[in-house]
Amino acid sequence: MKEYVIGVDVGGTTVKLGLFSTSGQLLEKWEIPTCTEQEGKKVLPDIAASIENKLKEKQISHDNVEGIGIGVPGPVDSSNVVHKCINLGWGVLNVKEEMNRLLPDIPKVAAGNDANVAALGELWQGGGQGSRSTVMMTLGTGVGGGVVLDGRIIAGHNGGAGEIGHITVEPQETELCACGKKGCVEQYASANGIVRLAKRMLTQSDEPSALRDMPQFTSKDICELAEQGDPMATAILERCGEYLGRALSCASAVIDPDVFIIGGGMSRAGKVLTDVIQRHYSQYAFHVSAHTRVVTARLGNDAGIYGCAKMIIE
Amino acid sequence: MKEYVIGVDVGGTTVKLGLFSTSGQLLEKWEIPTCTEQEGKKVLPDIAASIENKLKEKQISHDNVEGIGIGVPGPVDSSNVVHKCINLGWGVLNVKEEMNRLLPDIPKVAAGNDANVAALGELWQGGGQGSRSTVMMTLGTGVGGGVVLDGRIIAGHNGGAGEIGHITVEPQETELCACGKKGCVEQYASANGIVRLAKRMLTQSDEPSALRDMPQFTSKDICELAEQGDPMATAILERCGEYLGRALSCASAVIDPDVFIIGGGMSRAGKVLTDVIQRHYSQYAFHVSAHTRVVTARLGNDAGIYGCAKMIIE
Repeated sequence: MKEYVIGVDVGGTTVKLGLFSTSGQLLEKWEIPTCTEQEGKKVLPDIAASIENKLKEKQISHDNVEGIGIGVPGPVDSSNVVHKCINLGWGVLNVKEEMNRLLPDIPKVAAGNDANVAALGELWQGGGQGSRSTVMMTLGTGVGGGVVLDGRIIAGHNGGAGEIGHITVEPQETELCACGKKGCVEQYASANGIVRLAKRMLTQSDEPSALRDMPQFTSKDICELAEQGDPMATAILERCGEYLGRALSCASAVIDPDVFIIGGGMSRAGKVLTDVIQRHYSQYAFHVSAHTRVVTARLGNDAGIYGCAKMIIE
Repeated sequence: MKEYVIGVDVGGTTVKLGLFSTSGQLLEKWEIPTCTEQEGKKVLPDIAASIENKLKEKQISHDNVEGIGIGVPGPVDSSNVVHKCINLGWGVLNVKEEMNRLLPDIPKVAAGNDANVAALGELWQGGGQGSRSTVMMTLGTGVGGGVVLDGRIIAGHNGGAGEIGHITVEPQETELCACGKKGCVEQYASANGIVRLAKRMLTQSDEPSALRDMPQFTSKDICELAEQGDPMATAILERCGEYLGRALSCASAVIDPDVFIIGGGMSRAGKVLTDVIQRHYSQYAFHVSAHTRVVTARLGNDAGIYGCAKMIIE
C-alpha cells in the first residue's frame, strides 16, 4: 500500500498542488504560476518539476506515490484527454500520456474538469461529506457546476454535464448570456448576474433601498443588505434564489442526488442565500425529492486539490 | 456460459414475460394477468409458476438460466427493494429475496423501476441502439421517464431520478398537476396534457381549426391535424414541443446524454412530434450538447422485457 497521492488543480493564473496521504489527509499544499505562453506547453512540465522537487524535499520516493489527479478548466473525456482549455492555451491533449512521459515512475494519472473535480472534493471532505451523490453549483463570475453520482464524476457525452448554470429559467429574456442563449440561470445568479438583475429590478420599482445610494454594488452588498432587511435587496435575493431553486429542482428530476452544494464567492453569504434557495427548491421539486438539502461548500479554493486526490484514491 | 435470461415487466393489469438468449435475442414472449388481491401477494408466486411452466415446456433446465430481471411500477433501490407499488398493492418488498425463495436454482435476480427499465431496453435494442447514455420520456397518460448512464440505470437517492415529467416549465401556472405542483411538463405534454393545453389555447384564440368541430379530440387528432397543416393544431404541437424541448435541455445541462428517446402512445405521431421537440431542444441546449438527437422509441410494449433482460446480461 502506497502512502501518498498528489492533487493538482490547474487554473489560468496559478496551479494549486496538494500532497495527501492515501487515507485522505492533506499534508501540505503549495502553488506555482501557470505559464500559458507557447500554447501552454510548459504547464505540465512545470507541474512535474514542482512535484519532483516536493518529493525530494520530503524524501518521498516516487514508488511511494499512488498517483496524480489533475483538474483542468475545460472538458475532459473518460480517457483523460482534454479537449481545449482556452485559459491554458491547450488544444487536444492527453494529460495521462504526457504526465506518464514526464514522471514514468508514477503511472496512475487521472484528469478531470475543474468544476466536476471540485464537486467530488466537496462530496468527499467538504459540505457534502457523508453523501454519495451531488450536484454542485459554483456561483462565481459565471455559474459553474459539477455532478457526482455514487462517487463517480459525470462528464457527459459532449463534456456538457454539470452545466447547470445554463438551464433556461426565463425563456422570455431578451438579453444574451455569455453562452449565446437567453434566459440562463447564470444571467441572474452569478456574482455578475445578480448585480445585473438588481439594476434591472431597481429601475422597475420605486421601493426604497440602500442599494440606490451606492454608485457601485456587488453580490456581497446585496446579500448583506438582504440580511439586514432592506426590502429591495430581499426581493432581489428572493428572485435569484427562485431561479437557483428551480434549476436545482430540474437537476433533481433528472438524477435525484443526496445533496446540493453551493460554492463559489457568492456562497460566502451562507445561510441567507441557502435558505432562500432551499425554500424555492422544495417548492419546485417532485415530492419524493423535496427534502434534499442545499448546503454551502466548505473547502473553498482547496476543493479542487481534494477532488483531484480523490480521483486517485477511489 | 448459461444460455437463457428471463425479463418480467410487471404492470397493474398484466405481467409481460420474455425468454431471451444471453446473446440478447427475444425467443418468446407471453403474458399472465396481474393478481392484485391481498396486497398483491400472489404477483411474484404467479410469475415464478409461469416461469417454471415455460421452462418445463421448453425443456430448459433452471441451471441454464442466467437470471431474472423484473420491472415494477414503483421506486426500486439499489438493493432490489421495492418501496411501495400502489398499482400492485405492494408496500416494501425485497423482490430478489422473494424470487430467490420461489426459484432457488436461479439466484441472479435484479429489480428496477418500469420506466427506467424501458429506457435501458430502448438504449440496448430500440431507438437508442448504439448509444451509451439516454434520457427517455414516455408520453402516455402522464409523462414518465428513465435515465441510463454508461449502461447503468440511475434510480436516484429517493427513487426520483427520471421524473422529467415533473420539471417545472411554467412557474406561473395556476392549475395543479397530479403530483401536487404547478407547471409540470406533464400538464402540457402527456396525452391528457396536450388535450388540456389545446382546449385552453382554443378558448384564447379565434384561429380557425378542425379541432373546433370535434366534440372530443385526442393527442392523436392534434398531431394528425398538425401534420395536415391545421394552424391551431400546429400552434398547440409547437407549444407542447417547446415545453418538451426545454425539459430535455435541462436534462442535458445535468448529464448530457448521447441520445433522447421519446416513447409512449404519443410517440406514435413520429417525426412531426420529434422534429418540433428537436428544434426547441437545440435552441435551449448549451452549445456543446445542442446536436444531441431526439429519436422515437422502437420496442413499444416490449421495451420493459428487453430492459429487464439487459439488467441481467450486463
